[in-house]
Amino acid sequence: MPQISNRGNKAYDSPIRSLIPYADAAESKGTKVYYLNIGQPDIPTPPNAIEAVRQIDMPVLKYAPALGNTSYREKLTDYYRRFDVELSADNIMVTTGASEAIFLAMMSCLDEGDEVIIPEPFYAIYNGFSNIAKVKIVPITCHIENGYQLPETADFERVITKRTKAIFICNPNNPTGCLYSETALKELAMIVKKYELFLFVDEVYREFCYDNQSFFSSLNLIGLEENVVVMDSISKRFSACGARVGSMVTRNRGVMEAAVRFARYRLSPPGLGQILAEATIDTPSSYIDGVREEYDLRRLTLFDRLSKIEGVTCYPPGGAFYNFIKLPIDDAGKFCKWLLTDFEYKGSTVMISPGEGFYATAGLGKQEVRIAYVLNVNDLHRAMDCLEAGLKAYSGREISRSLHTA
Amino acid sequence: MPQISNRGNKAYDSPIRSLIPYADAAESKGTKVYYLNIGQPDIPTPPNAIEAVRQIDMPVLKYAPALGNTSYREKLTDYYRRFDVELSADNIMVTTGASEAIFLAMMSCLDEGDEVIIPEPFYAIYNGFSNIAKVKIVPITCHIENGYQLPETADFERVITKRTKAIFICNPNNPTGCLYSETALKELAMIVKKYELFLFVDEVYREFCYDNQSFFSSLNLIGLEENVVVMDSISKRFSACGARVGSMVTRNRGVMEAAVRFARYRLSPPGLGQILAEATIDTPSSYIDGVREEYDLRRLTLFDRLSKIEGVTCYPPGGAFYNFIKLPIDDAGKFCKWLLTDFEYKGSTVMISPGEGFYATAGLGKQEVRIAYVLNVNDLHRAMDCLEAGLKAYSGREISRSLHTA
Repeated sequence: MPQISNRGNKAYDSPIRSLIPYADAAESKGTKVYYLNIGQPDIPTPPNAIEAVRQIDMPVLKYAPALGNTSYREKLTDYYRRFDVELSADNIMVTTGASEAIFLAMMSCLDEGDEVIIPEPFYAIYNGFSNIAKVKIVPITCHIENGYQLPETADFERVITKRTKAIFICNPNNPTGCLYSETALKELAMIVKKYELFLFVDEVYREFCYDNQSFFSSLNLIGLEENVVVMDSISKRFSACGARVGSMVTRNRGVMEAAVRFARYRLSPPGLGQILAEATIDTPSSYIDGVREEYDLRRLTLFDRLSKIEGVTCYPPGGAFYNFIKLPIDDAGKFCKWLLTDFEYKGSTVMISPGEGFYATAGLGKQEVRIAYVLNVNDLHRAMDCLEAGLKAYSGREISRSLHTA
Repeated sequence: MPQISNRGNKAYDSPIRSLIPYADAAESKGTKVYYLNIGQPDIPTPPNAIEAVRQIDMPVLKYAPALGNTSYREKLTDYYRRFDVELSADNIMVTTGASEAIFLAMMSCLDEGDEVIIPEPFYAIYNGFSNIAKVKIVPITCHIENGYQLPETADFERVITKRTKAIFICNPNNPTGCLYSETALKELAMIVKKYELFLFVDEVYREFCYDNQSFFSSLNLIGLEENVVVMDSISKRFSACGARVGSMVTRNRGVMEAAVRFARYRLSPPGLGQILAEATIDTPSSYIDGVREEYDLRRLTLFDRLSKIEGVTCYPPGGAFYNFIKLPIDDAGKFCKWLLTDFEYKGSTVMISPGEGFYATAGLGKQEVRIAYVLNVNDLHRAMDCLEAGLKAYSGREISRSLHTA
């Protein structure tokens, strides 16, 4: 029998994956599982976007251009203008989800062995694409004490080497929910410019900023027009994860040209998804306002509940729909598994993501978990009941200093 | 300004790309261009499949599983059974087009520096994915004299090294239209088994076999259950290139598991495309029969016309919808460009693909072109009028021995 590749054998796999069979087993023995482990919103996709798909009238579903449909790319310039970002359609490539935008940006900007600095904890999938692209992730650890704000300039400069080619951030952040301010981004911009790096910014949660804070796009960093590459997606803002439509946005022509060369191998981004995506741009703003209000309510509910659980360290996240909290436990991986295999509260339990998978530095995240508040407030309360009861019952409980930043 | 990556700079780009601006320019000066350069069928997508999309009724367009929707994977087992291939849904991963299946197969089976033997001419996009996966393509040259049949066993054995990990074929073939017989495949199977290689088979043109020849799937090669990995797609058979839905099929569990690890990075294949794809399986067989008849008519028309053009070497292809012919010219790249820039016949011209881009061996293909018969018979006649007149008028004409195999 031929042997699979070593890289196939060793391919990065999210630690959360190993928990899925336990969740399935819990369900099959009749336990209700509250899933707070994935970023799959329960919010309805905009009805006008679904309706656009229902109205399709095309004899042949042809390849789209490799860059995506021109009509959609042009409409996207209207969308970005809502964030005061002025673009031309030439600055935008439609991608197969933000995932592809990440991969294309890495391939186009970084060579094998080049280094990309990423504040940790970070979205675990960056590991996978870094491995395929053979670029090295250099993490800088952020801290729960300040809600996982961006590292200081000195922290970045300490790890910059001759192989450093890019800094990669996610704003608002997955998994921490941290929203980076204009000031923080401008400080970061100075480092980026000083060393002439690329700045990759995953902005898929752009719409979800709370406490009346506004979003500042990295595409508005003056002087960084050639440095910034934004990865984007309709998945979260329009609750359309299944469409697999994202975008890569950059004013750097060389990057766009290289990315298109790679993108041509896959011929075109999804055609039906692009029809839906194009329609999302006509979605009334009341939709996004409503979604934001709903997440905000959940966010406050979650924070309120977490704040009252003894030994939990938490903070109110400024954006996205995640919270990355510290629990008074020995090992989050063990705890998350135990919640599924050996625990129930009133016939229910909760699935959350162990923190370790979000760190590149070995040994970190052992007491942290990511909670995605993708369930309604009632379910969130029930899930928090389970978490609270679980923490009381868990034998690996450890005493930890509680900290609530406000 | 930060510099793009070397690999981005050097990324493989199909030579046909450089001709597109010339085609655009020809059109904008009013010349009608007959496009025979791409595999975009003009055949209608099955109306029942479009209708399935028009009927969607889902509040949230969620991520599909990384492997694709279970319902679709189960229905695909029915589809493959039509070719006497018995599979379980576990043997099938839904991919984002055959393109992704190619990449996943390479990543899962081959390590950096491993060699994959591919008979040339071959589908140019294999180059792109080989470059990203950093595997080495070892070509074996096929010949127009026998209609580009598979190389002999000795030809394969001559190039097998310790790094050879796979043989990769496309059946029926793009770009040659050659259909490989059961006998030829069984001979190949012996080499594959002898050296315990993987056998990658791109079978996206499976439905298009002519002259009452039946298709023999590599999935029916007895004893090669662990070796065969099939790349597939609904794009061609159901004229749904824009759906971006393909599949990777293998009974090798290790390969499937590795491929899923990589596939998880992109979360899921397109959701709306999968709805369309699932409906294609209920398409009445009269649809495919009609499409095959239509292509057959075009094939015979094309062969008839080409046979009558002085100096053209051609053969009747057994499958797919391509013909890879030899022209009495100095340089196909120059000729194809000239057809667009400096020629017209009754206000029209034709766009065809230069052969060089389909060869890995430098210098080959200079007199060959690929013609995709994706236009109706009338347009095909007009396009052949242009080709015939173009060959007469072209200053780089060279005398060549004509050969018609039958």
